[in-house]
Amino acid sequence: MSQTSPASPESLRIGWIGAGIMGSSMVGHLLRAGHSVRLHTRTRAKAEPLLAMGATWADSPAEASAGAHVVCSNVGLPAEVEEVYFGANGVLPRLQPGQLLVDFGTSPPSFARRLADAAVAKGADSVDAPVSGGDIGARNATLSIMVGGSDAAVARAMPVLSTLGKTIVHQGPAGSGQRTKIVNQILVAANTLGMCEALHFASRAGLDPQRVLDSVGGGAAASWSIQVLAPRVLKGDFDPGFIVEHLVKDLRIARSDAKELGELLPLVDLCLARYEALVDAGHGRKGTQGVYLLYRDR
Amino acid sequence: MSQTSPASPESLRIGWIGAGIMGSSMVGHLLRAGHSVRLHTRTRAKAEPLLAMGATWADSPAEASAGAHVVCSNVGLPAEVEEVYFGANGVLPRLQPGQLLVDFGTSPPSFARRLADAAVAKGADSVDAPVSGGDIGARNATLSIMVGGSDAAVARAMPVLSTLGKTIVHQGPAGSGQRTKIVNQILVAANTLGMCEALHFASRAGLDPQRVLDSVGGGAAASWSIQVLAPRVLKGDFDPGFIVEHLVKDLRIARSDAKELGELLPLVDLCLARYEALVDAGHGRKGTQGVYLLYRDR
Repeated sequence: MSQTSPASPESLRIGWIGAGIMGSSMVGHLLRAGHSVRLHTRTRAKAEPLLAMGATWADSPAEASAGAHVVCSNVGLPAEVEEVYFGANGVLPRLQPGQLLVDFGTSPPSFARRLADAAVAKGADSVDAPVSGGDIGARNATLSIMVGGSDAAVARAMPVLSTLGKTIVHQGPAGSGQRTKIVNQILVAANTLGMCEALHFASRAGLDPQRVLDSVGGGAAASWSIQVLAPRVLKGDFDPGFIVEHLVKDLRIARSDAKELGELLPLVDLCLARYEALVDAGHGRKGTQGVYLLYRDR
Repeated sequence: MSQTSPASPESLRIGWIGAGIMGSSMVGHLLRAGHSVRLHTRTRAKAEPLLAMGATWADSPAEASAGAHVVCSNVGLPAEVEEVYFGANGVLPRLQPGQLLVDFGTSPPSFARRLADAAVAKGADSVDAPVSGGDIGARNATLSIMVGGSDAAVARAMPVLSTLGKTIVHQGPAGSGQRTKIVNQILVAANTLGMCEALHFASRAGLDPQRVLDSVGGGAAASWSIQVLAPRVLKGDFDPGFIVEHLVKDLRIARSDAKELGELLPLVDLCLARYEALVDAGHGRKGTQGVYLLYRDR
């Protein structure tokens, strides 16, 4: 079908839904790579910088996806993703054969499987492609993209994926990208909570936390959380690279998926409890390094 | 005093107590750097390779330290360290003015302060210098050494420290090295428990854990635990770089020191409970990555 075959391998018609911190950087890369992007997001103001760069506006996910070769989404909460794809003005009701869906958000693995089944039933296809790397990774196109889907679907998604990320690994069938992302988020949560608990101890123990980082940043205690987020904590910078509410969502997905598998994840339970307490304390829109405030303000 | 002034800045008479995984590598570096080392360790068999390299044997900590410019220790449990320094055949009873003590082990900060006070009272001095970097760091002399003590004592210790480590940071007065090490161990425990919980989830979720590492090893989830210890877990290699019993000891020190400061460390509490359960399961002499077995064998 003409509307689903690219005019050239270099230029794709892309429908995109969502313009958060990560999504905005990602759409920017696609525009600069010469793709056309039709964009929908709940808050139009967030889209303006991308419209100024050449994206066109769509009033709904359905409109963004009409005629697109590839329909991408990067939206926040499960209810929103559900609405984007399965809502009355969503992507699925008007999905055409040959179209390809790519969900960059972090959704339950069961959702990814359901979306892939629904797409295949319409002669289309779907890939789950959650990302890691934070705001920096999105800005520099160095994201790690964890991909689930059929070989054919993943091959078709590659021109988009390779524009946005550096480490792109096909992990298995639909849902496998999401399950890999769960692994990633368990690590992120443990490393970040550990970093904040450790920095808090350093501070209360009368140490110079900056000098402590010189000691612990390069050895067996090293992590991305220590190297990237700890300096933000020391500057009192709790702005989001990745927001607390989204980590809470991801950890709930982790717990729920683990429960389906009959597994206990005690560290996930603790991290979730701490981050939920952080939301309760009014810090849900801060960056994940904000869990330091739970210790500081106790 | 002649027995405490080096013949040349390059060659020191060093007394050394302890020959565990880390200590053995460290003594090897000192011997190769041209220092003379008089060695005592509880199990003489562990000292044999170092005696073959030129170290001389001492029957007690007191004998190892007699005439030494610098007396170093790297032994395991608090009761052993207590005995090494304050026991009847320990270092302190016969400590001479001008001698310098360097404790490379991880001991309570309060012990480091008590040892420094006792040394100073005899005209000697003491430095707490716990290390991080594991077996690899000790072998390659790339350890991070976290140093507490007076400026003068730390300056005198530098020829020894710089032979053994790469990142050497003076953190503050006596005990500050130990408190920095607590920070380090909070991070190590959180990162390692997180790595094992995440790998276990990956395995039970039907993913290929090796391929998952390709996705999560280089981004926001990255850590030394993921990069160095996770591959060991996937090979079924639970041999110690750093043994579980020592991490349990260190986390108990962390909890106890935090309690003195009136602080709660919930992540430390969870890590300690998991690692204590691992000891109860008979895995106390395995490497810290062995906490994976608690999940696998549940």
